[in-house]
Amino acid sequence: MEYYSEKISRLIAELSSLPGIGSKSAQRLAFHLLDMPEEKVKKFTDAVLDAKTNVKYCSRCFCLTDREVCPICSNTNRDNSIIMVVESTRDMAAYERIGKFNGVYHVLNGVISPMLGIGPGDIRIKELLLRLQHEDVQEVVIATNSSVEGEATAMYISKLLKPAGIKVSRIANGIPVGGDLEYIDEVTLLRALEGRIIL
Amino acid sequence: MEYYSEKISRLIAELSSLPGIGSKSAQRLAFHLLDMPEEKVKKFTDAVLDAKTNVKYCSRCFCLTDREVCPICSNTNRDNSIIMVVESTRDMAAYERIGKFNGVYHVLNGVISPMLGIGPGDIRIKELLLRLQHEDVQEVVIATNSSVEGEATAMYISKLLKPAGIKVSRIANGIPVGGDLEYIDEVTLLRALEGRIIL
Repeated sequence: MEYYSEKISRLIAELSSLPGIGSKSAQRLAFHLLDMPEEKVKKFTDAVLDAKTNVKYCSRCFCLTDREVCPICSNTNRDNSIIMVVESTRDMAAYERIGKFNGVYHVLNGVISPMLGIGPGDIRIKELLLRLQHEDVQEVVIATNSSVEGEATAMYISKLLKPAGIKVSRIANGIPVGGDLEYIDEVTLLRALEGRIIL
Repeated sequence: MEYYSEKISRLIAELSSLPGIGSKSAQRLAFHLLDMPEEKVKKFTDAVLDAKTNVKYCSRCFCLTDREVCPICSNTNRDNSIIMVVESTRDMAAYERIGKFNGVYHVLNGVISPMLGIGPGDIRIKELLLRLQHEDVQEVVIATNSSVEGEATAMYISKLLKPAGIKVSRIANGIPVGGDLEYIDEVTLLRALEGRIIL
Protein backbone atom coordinates (compact mmCIF):
# COMPACT_ATOMS: atom_id res chain seq x y z
CA MET A 1 0.00 0.00 0.00
CA GLU A 2 3.03 2.26 0.30
CA TYR A 3 2.45 3.29 -3.31
CA TYR A 4 -0.24 5.67 -2.11
CA SER A 5 0.08 8.54 0.32
CA GLU A 6 -0.75 7.85 3.97
CA LYS A 7 -4.39 8.99 4.08
CA ILE A 8 -5.25 7.05 0.91
CA SER A 9 -3.50 3.95 2.28
CA ARG A 10 -5.41 4.25 5.52
CA LEU A 11 -8.71 4.49 3.64
CA ILE A 12 -7.80 1.45 1.52
CA ALA A 13 -6.83 -0.50 4.66
CA GLU A 14 -10.13 0.35 6.34
CA LEU A 15 -12.12 -0.68 3.26
CA SER A 16 -10.26 -3.94 2.77
CA SER A 17 -10.98 -4.92 6.37
CA LEU A 18 -14.66 -5.26 5.39
CA PRO A 19 -15.92 -8.73 4.45
CA GLY A 20 -15.72 -9.69 0.79
CA ILE A 21 -13.60 -6.65 -0.09
CA GLY A 22 -10.13 -7.57 -1.29
CA SER A 23 -7.22 -5.26 -1.92
CA LYS A 24 -8.22 -4.46 -5.54
CA SER A 25 -11.87 -3.73 -4.67
CA ALA A 26 -10.72 -1.59 -1.74
CA GLN A 27 -8.56 0.53 -4.07
CA ARG A 28 -11.44 0.87 -6.51
CA LEU A 29 -13.83 1.92 -3.72
CA ALA A 30 -11.29 4.32 -2.20
CA PHE A 31 -10.78 6.18 -5.47
CA HIS A 32 -14.51 6.17 -6.08
CA LEU A 33 -15.06 7.80 -2.69
CA LEU A 34 -12.30 10.35 -3.40
CA ASP A 35 -14.01 11.11 -6.69
CA MET A 36 -17.46 11.59 -5.16
CA PRO A 37 -18.73 15.10 -4.27
CA GLU A 38 -17.95 16.00 -0.65
CA GLU A 39 -21.62 16.18 0.38
CA LYS A 40 -22.26 12.68 -0.96
CA VAL A 41 -19.34 11.29 1.02
CA LYS A 42 -20.73 13.08 4.09
CA LYS A 43 -24.14 11.53 3.41
CA PHE A 44 -22.50 8.11 3.18
CA THR A 45 -20.57 8.40 6.47
CA ASP A 46 -23.64 9.91 8.16
CA ALA A 47 -25.71 6.88 7.12
CA VAL A 48 -23.07 4.58 8.61
CA LEU A 49 -22.82 6.46 11.90
CA ASP A 50 -26.57 7.06 12.18
CA ALA A 51 -27.33 3.38 11.69
CA LYS A 52 -24.55 2.35 14.07
CA THR A 53 -25.77 4.76 16.78
CA ASN A 54 -29.50 4.19 16.49
CA VAL A 55 -29.97 0.60 15.43
CA LYS A 56 -30.57 -1.65 18.43
CA TYR A 57 -32.27 -4.96 19.03
CA CYS A 58 -36.07 -5.06 19.06
CA SER A 59 -37.01 -5.57 22.71
CA ARG A 60 -39.37 -8.39 21.77
CA CYS A 61 -37.96 -10.37 18.83
CA PHE A 62 -34.32 -9.12 18.93
CA CYS A 63 -34.09 -8.26 15.26
CA LEU A 64 -32.00 -5.19 14.43
CA THR A 65 -34.23 -2.12 14.15
CA ASP A 66 -34.17 1.60 14.81
CA ARG A 67 -37.32 1.45 16.97
CA GLU A 68 -37.89 0.13 20.48
CA VAL A 69 -40.24 -2.54 19.06
CA CYS A 70 -39.76 -3.48 15.40
CA PRO A 71 -42.49 -2.85 12.77
CA ILE A 72 -43.34 -6.57 12.60
CA CYS A 73 -43.78 -6.99 16.35
CA SER A 74 -45.86 -3.82 16.55
CA ASN A 75 -48.07 -4.79 13.59
CA THR A 76 -51.44 -5.80 15.03
CA ASN A 77 -52.31 -7.77 11.88
CA ARG A 78 -49.58 -10.34 12.49
CA ASP A 79 -50.45 -13.68 14.01
CA ASN A 80 -48.71 -13.71 17.39
CA SER A 81 -49.43 -17.39 17.99
CA ILE A 82 -46.75 -18.58 15.57
CA ILE A 83 -43.09 -17.67 16.05
CA MET A 84 -40.41 -18.33 13.45
CA VAL A 85 -36.94 -18.68 14.98
CA VAL A 86 -34.16 -17.42 12.69
CA GLU A 87 -30.42 -16.88 13.07
CA SER A 88 -30.22 -13.27 11.90
CA THR A 89 -32.17 -10.18 10.87
CA ARG A 90 -31.12 -10.94 7.28
CA ASP A 91 -32.76 -14.37 7.45
CA MET A 92 -35.90 -12.70 8.80
CA ALA A 93 -35.81 -10.30 5.84
CA ALA A 94 -35.47 -13.27 3.46
CA TYR A 95 -38.75 -14.71 4.76
CA GLU A 96 -40.40 -11.29 4.81
CA ARG A 97 -39.51 -10.85 1.17
CA ILE A 98 -41.71 -13.76 0.12
CA GLY A 99 -44.59 -12.20 2.10
CA LYS A 100 -46.29 -15.51 2.89
CA PHE A 101 -45.50 -15.80 6.59
CA ASN A 102 -47.87 -13.80 8.74
CA GLY A 103 -46.56 -14.85 12.14
CA VAL A 104 -43.85 -13.13 14.16
CA TYR A 105 -40.13 -13.82 14.51
CA HIS A 106 -37.53 -14.49 17.12
CA VAL A 107 -33.98 -13.64 16.06
CA LEU A 108 -31.28 -15.67 17.85
CA ASN A 109 -28.47 -13.43 16.59
CA GLY A 110 -26.18 -16.38 16.20
CA VAL A 111 -26.06 -20.17 16.37
CA ILE A 112 -24.60 -22.61 18.86
CA SER A 113 -21.06 -23.28 17.70
CA PRO A 114 -18.66 -25.07 20.05
CA MET A 115 -15.88 -24.47 17.49
CA LEU A 116 -16.27 -20.72 17.92
CA GLY A 117 -17.01 -21.01 21.63
CA ILE A 118 -20.64 -19.93 21.21
CA GLY A 119 -22.90 -21.76 23.65
CA PRO A 120 -26.69 -21.67 24.13
CA GLY A 121 -26.25 -18.85 26.66
CA ASP A 122 -24.62 -16.61 24.05
CA ILE A 123 -27.61 -16.46 21.72
CA ARG A 124 -31.17 -15.33 22.44
CA ILE A 125 -32.59 -18.69 23.57
CA LYS A 126 -33.53 -17.70 27.13
CA GLU A 127 -35.36 -14.69 25.71
CA LEU A 128 -37.34 -17.11 23.51
CA LEU A 129 -38.28 -19.20 26.56
CA LEU A 130 -39.36 -16.03 28.37
CA ARG A 131 -41.57 -15.07 25.44
CA LEU A 132 -43.16 -18.51 25.41
CA GLN A 133 -44.04 -18.10 29.10
CA HIS A 134 -45.73 -14.74 28.60
CA GLU A 135 -47.21 -15.02 25.12
CA ASP A 136 -49.88 -17.39 23.88
CA VAL A 137 -47.85 -19.31 21.29
CA GLN A 138 -49.26 -22.28 19.36
CA GLU A 139 -46.27 -23.17 17.21
CA VAL A 140 -42.55 -22.46 16.97
CA VAL A 141 -41.11 -22.88 13.46
CA ILE A 142 -37.35 -23.31 13.61
CA ALA A 143 -35.77 -21.76 10.53
CA THR A 144 -32.08 -21.79 11.38
CA ASN A 145 -29.75 -22.52 8.48
CA SER A 146 -29.25 -26.04 7.24
CA SER A 147 -25.60 -26.04 8.38
CA VAL A 148 -24.15 -28.25 11.12
CA GLU A 149 -24.47 -25.38 13.63
CA GLY A 150 -27.97 -24.48 12.42
CA GLU A 151 -29.13 -28.08 12.76
CA ALA A 152 -27.58 -28.44 16.21
CA THR A 153 -29.25 -25.23 17.36
CA ALA A 154 -32.60 -26.43 15.96
CA MET A 155 -32.25 -29.75 17.82
CA TYR A 156 -31.28 -27.97 21.04
CA ILE A 157 -34.28 -25.63 20.94
CA SER A 158 -36.64 -28.41 19.95
CA LYS A 159 -35.52 -30.58 22.90
CA LEU A 160 -36.00 -27.61 25.20
CA LEU A 161 -39.51 -26.74 24.03
CA LYS A 162 -41.14 -30.10 23.38
CA PRO A 163 -41.39 -31.14 27.06
CA ALA A 164 -43.25 -27.88 27.69
CA GLY A 165 -45.92 -29.12 25.25
CA ILE A 166 -45.24 -26.52 22.57
CA LYS A 167 -45.62 -27.58 18.92
CA VAL A 168 -42.19 -27.27 17.32
CA SER A 169 -41.58 -27.54 13.58
CA ARG A 170 -38.57 -27.23 11.29
CA ILE A 171 -38.54 -25.83 7.74
CA ALA A 172 -38.13 -28.62 5.16
CA ASN A 173 -34.92 -29.84 3.59
CA GLY A 174 -35.13 -30.89 -0.03
CA ILE A 175 -34.25 -30.13 -3.62
CA PRO A 176 -34.17 -26.37 -4.22
CA VAL A 177 -36.74 -25.35 -6.86
CA GLY A 178 -35.03 -25.42 -10.26
CA GLY A 179 -32.28 -27.62 -8.80
CA ASP A 180 -30.73 -30.42 -10.84
CA LEU A 181 -30.80 -33.76 -9.01
CA GLU A 182 -27.54 -34.78 -10.65
CA TYR A 183 -25.63 -32.05 -8.85
CA ILE A 184 -27.30 -32.29 -5.46
CA ASP A 185 -25.49 -33.81 -2.49
CA GLU A 186 -26.52 -37.16 -1.01
CA VAL A 187 -27.78 -35.85 2.31
CA THR A 188 -30.15 -33.47 0.55
CA LEU A 189 -31.37 -36.26 -1.76
CA LEU A 190 -32.05 -38.46 1.25
CA ARG A 191 -33.86 -35.68 3.13
CA ALA A 192 -35.97 -34.94 0.04
CA LEU A 193 -36.96 -38.60 -0.17
CA GLU A 194 -37.74 -38.83 3.54
CA GLY A 195 -39.75 -35.64 3.39
CA ARG A 196 -41.73 -36.63 0.28
CA ILE A 197 -45.36 -35.56 0.21
CA ILE A 198 -48.29 -37.57 -1.15
CA LEU A 199 -49.76 -36.05 -4.30
CA MET B 1 -35.44 -2.89 1.16
CA GLU B 2 -38.66 -2.23 3.09
CA TYR B 3 -37.94 -5.42 5.05
CA TYR B 4 -35.49 -3.48 7.17
CA SER B 5 -36.14 -0.45 9.31
CA GLU B 6 -35.43 2.95 7.79
CA LYS B 7 -31.89 3.60 9.08
CA ILE B 8 -30.74 0.13 8.03
CA SER B 9 -32.34 0.55 4.58
CA ARG B 10 -30.63 3.91 4.18
CA LEU B 11 -27.26 2.37 5.05
CA ILE B 12 -27.84 -0.49 2.59
CA ALA B 13 -28.85 2.00 -0.12
CA GLU B 14 -25.70 4.07 0.45
CA LEU B 15 -23.48 0.98 0.34
CA SER B 16 -25.09 -0.42 -2.79
CA SER B 17 -24.49 2.88 -4.61
CA LEU B 18 -20.75 2.08 -4.49
CA PRO B 19 -19.21 0.41 -7.56
CA GLY B 20 -19.16 -3.39 -7.57
CA ILE B 21 -21.42 -3.64 -4.53
CA GLY B 22 -24.75 -5.28 -5.29
CA SER B 23 -27.78 -5.51 -3.07
CA LYS B 24 -26.65 -8.74 -1.34
CA SER B 25 -23.11 -7.47 -0.65
CA ALA B 26 -24.55 -4.19 0.63
CA GLN B 27 -26.72 -6.07 3.13
CA ARG B 28 -23.75 -8.13 4.23
CA LEU B 29 -21.59 -5.02 4.68
CA ALA B 30 -24.36 -3.14 6.48
CA PHE B 31 -24.82 -5.88 9.07
CA HIS B 32 -21.08 -6.21 9.41
CA LEU B 33 -20.81 -2.49 10.18
CA LEU B 34 -23.70 -2.73 12.66
CA ASP B 35 -21.87 -5.60 14.31
CA MET B 36 -18.54 -3.76 14.59
CA PRO B 37 -17.58 -1.96 17.83
CA GLU B 38 -18.61 1.69 17.75
CA GLU B 39 -15.04 3.02 17.86
CA LYS B 40 -14.07 0.91 14.85
CA VAL B 41 -16.99 2.27 12.86
CA LYS B 42 -15.91 5.77 13.88
CA LYS B 43 -12.36 4.96 12.75
CA PHE B 44 -13.75 3.80 9.42
CA THR B 45 -15.87 6.89 8.76
CA ASP B 46 -13.00 9.12 9.97
CA ALA B 47 -10.68 7.51 7.42
CA VAL B 48 -13.23 8.19 4.66
CA LEU B 49 -13.79 11.83 5.64
CA ASP B 50 -10.12 12.50 6.37
CA ALA B 51 -9.07 11.17 2.97
CA LYS B 52 -11.89 13.02 1.22
CA THR B 53 -11.00 16.32 2.92
CA ASN B 54 -7.23 16.16 2.67
CA VAL B 55 -6.45 14.27 -0.51
CA LYS B 56 -5.86 16.65 -3.42
CA TYR B 57 -3.95 16.54 -6.69
CA CYS B 58 -0.16 16.81 -6.56
CA SER B 59 0.64 20.26 -7.93
CA ARG B 60 3.25 18.82 -10.28
CA CYS B 61 2.13 15.39 -11.53
CA PHE B 62 -1.58 15.56 -10.56
CA CYS B 63 -1.70 12.22 -8.82
CA LEU B 64 -3.96 12.03 -5.76
CA THR B 65 -1.96 12.66 -2.59
CA ASP B 66 -2.31 14.23 0.84
CA ARG B 67 0.72 16.47 0.32
CA GLU B 68 1.20 19.59 -1.82
CA VAL B 69 3.81 17.72 -3.89
CA CYS B 70 3.61 13.92 -3.91
CA PRO B 71 6.41 11.70 -2.49
CA ILE B 72 7.54 10.67 -6.00
CA CYS B 73 7.81 14.24 -7.32
CA SER B 74 9.66 15.37 -4.18
CA ASN B 75 12.05 12.39 -4.24
CA THR B 76 15.42 13.75 -5.42
CA ASN B 77 16.59 10.27 -6.45
CA ARG B 78 14.02 10.03 -9.23
CA ASP B 79 15.04 10.73 -12.80
CA ASN B 80 13.15 13.87 -13.77
CA SER B 81 14.13 13.58 -17.43
CA ILE B 82 11.64 10.79 -18.15
CA ILE B 83 7.91 11.25 -17.60
CA MET B 84 5.42 8.39 -17.73
CA VAL B 85 1.92 9.56 -18.66
CA VAL B 86 -0.84 7.48 -17.02
CA GLU B 87 -4.62 7.73 -16.81
CA SER B 88 -5.02 7.47 -13.05
CA THR B 89 -3.26 7.36 -9.70
CA ARG B 90 -4.09 3.63 -9.57
CA ASP B 91 -2.21 3.06 -12.83
CA MET B 92 0.73 4.99 -11.38
CA ALA B 93 0.62 2.71 -8.32
CA ALA B 94 0.59 -0.34 -10.62
CA TYR B 95 3.91 0.76 -12.15
CA GLU B 96 5.32 1.78 -8.76
CA ARG B 97 4.57 -1.70 -7.46
CA ILE B 98 7.04 -3.29 -9.89
CA GLY B 99 9.67 -0.81 -8.69
CA LYS B 100 11.56 -0.73 -12.00
CA PHE B 101 10.62 2.71 -13.26
CA ASN B 102 12.75 5.44 -11.74
CA GLY B 103 11.34 8.38 -13.68
CA VAL B 104 8.44 10.59 -12.70
CA TYR B 105 4.77 10.51 -13.66
CA HIS B 106 2.10 12.70 -15.12
CA VAL B 107 -1.44 11.66 -14.24
CA LEU B 108 -4.06 12.71 -16.79
CA ASN B 109 -6.97 11.85 -14.48
CA GLY B 110 -9.04 10.60 -17.39
CA VAL B 111 -8.88 9.82 -21.09
CA ILE B 112 -10.25 11.53 -24.15
CA SER B 113 -13.69 10.00 -24.71
CA PRO B 114 -16.05 11.68 -27.18
CA MET B 115 -18.73 9.16 -26.14
CA LEU B 116 -18.65 10.52 -22.58
CA GLY B 117 -18.08 14.10 -23.75
CA ILE B 118 -14.52 14.21 -22.38
CA GLY B 119 -12.27 16.26 -24.64
CA PRO B 120 -8.51 17.00 -24.45
CA GLY B 121 -9.29 20.10 -22.38
CA ASP B 122 -10.94 18.03 -19.66
CA ILE B 123 -7.86 16.00 -18.75
CA ARG B 124 -4.43 17.23 -17.63
CA ILE B 125 -2.83 17.57 -21.09
CA LYS B 126 -2.14 21.31 -20.98
CA GLU B 127 -0.47 20.80 -17.59
CA LEU B 128 1.79 18.22 -19.26
CA LEU B 129 2.72 20.70 -22.01
CA LEU B 130 3.49 23.31 -19.35
CA ARG B 131 5.76 20.86 -17.54
CA LEU B 132 7.60 20.08 -20.77
CA GLN B 133 8.26 23.81 -21.26
CA HIS B 134 9.72 24.27 -17.80
CA GLU B 135 11.39 20.94 -17.10
CA ASP B 136 14.29 19.31 -18.91
CA VAL B 137 12.52 16.21 -20.24
CA GLN B 138 14.25 13.70 -22.54
CA GLU B 139 11.42 11.20 -23.02
CA VAL B 140 7.68 10.91 -22.50
CA VAL B 141 6.44 7.30 -22.09
CA ILE B 142 2.72 7.10 -22.77
CA ALA B 143 1.19 4.39 -20.57
CA THR B 144 -2.52 5.00 -21.03
CA ASN B 145 -4.66 1.85 -21.14
CA SER B 146 -4.84 -0.26 -24.27
CA SER B 147 -8.53 0.61 -24.77
CA VAL B 148 -9.94 2.61 -27.68
CA GLU B 149 -9.94 5.77 -25.53
CA GLY B 150 -6.48 5.07 -24.14
CA GLU B 151 -5.08 4.56 -27.64
CA ALA B 152 -6.76 7.72 -28.95
CA THR B 153 -5.37 9.72 -26.04
CA ALA B 154 -1.89 8.29 -26.65
CA MET B 155 -2.10 9.26 -30.35
CA TYR B 156 -3.34 12.73 -29.50
CA ILE B 157 -0.51 13.42 -27.04
CA SER B 158 2.09 11.93 -29.35
CA LYS B 159 0.99 14.17 -32.25
CA LEU B 160 1.13 17.16 -29.94
CA LEU B 161 4.62 16.47 -28.59
CA LYS B 162 6.51 15.12 -31.58
CA PRO B 163 6.65 18.44 -33.52
CA ALA B 164 8.27 19.97 -30.42
CA GLY B 165 11.10 17.48 -30.83
CA ILE B 166 10.38 15.47 -27.69
CA LYS B 167 11.02 11.73 -27.76
CA VAL B 168 7.65 10.05 -27.26
CA SER B 169 7.25 6.30 -26.61
CA ARG B 170 4.35 3.98 -25.90
CA ILE B 171 4.37 0.88 -23.66
CA ALA B 172 4.28 -2.33 -25.72
CA ASN B 173 1.25 -4.36 -26.70
CA GLY B 174 1.68 -8.12 -26.79
CA ILE B 175 0.95 -11.46 -25.18
CA PRO B 176 0.62 -11.11 -21.39
CA VAL B 177 3.21 -13.24 -19.58
CA GLY B 178 1.68 -16.66 -18.90
CA GLY B 179 -0.98 -15.96 -21.53
CA ASP B 180 -2.23 -18.72 -23.81
CA LEU B 181 -1.99 -17.79 -27.52
CA GLU B 182 -5.09 -19.83 -28.28
CA TYR B 183 -7.29 -17.52 -26.23
CA ILE B 184 -5.75 -14.22 -27.21
CA ASP B 185 -7.60 -11.85 -29.54
CA GLU B 186 -6.39 -11.20 -33.10
CA VAL B 187 -5.39 -7.58 -32.60
CA THR B 188 -3.13 -8.53 -29.70
CA LEU B 189 -1.60 -11.38 -31.72
CA LEU B 190 -0.90 -8.98 -34.59
CA ARG B 191 0.62 -6.36 -32.28
CA ALA B 192 2.80 -9.02 -30.64
CA LEU B 193 4.08 -10.07 -34.09
CA GLU B 194 4.70 -6.50 -35.20
CA GLY B 195 6.46 -5.70 -31.98
CA ARG B 196 8.66 -8.81 -32.02
CA ILE B 197 12.20 -8.40 -30.75
CA ILE B 198 15.33 -10.01 -32.16
CA LEU B 199 16.84 -12.57 -29.79
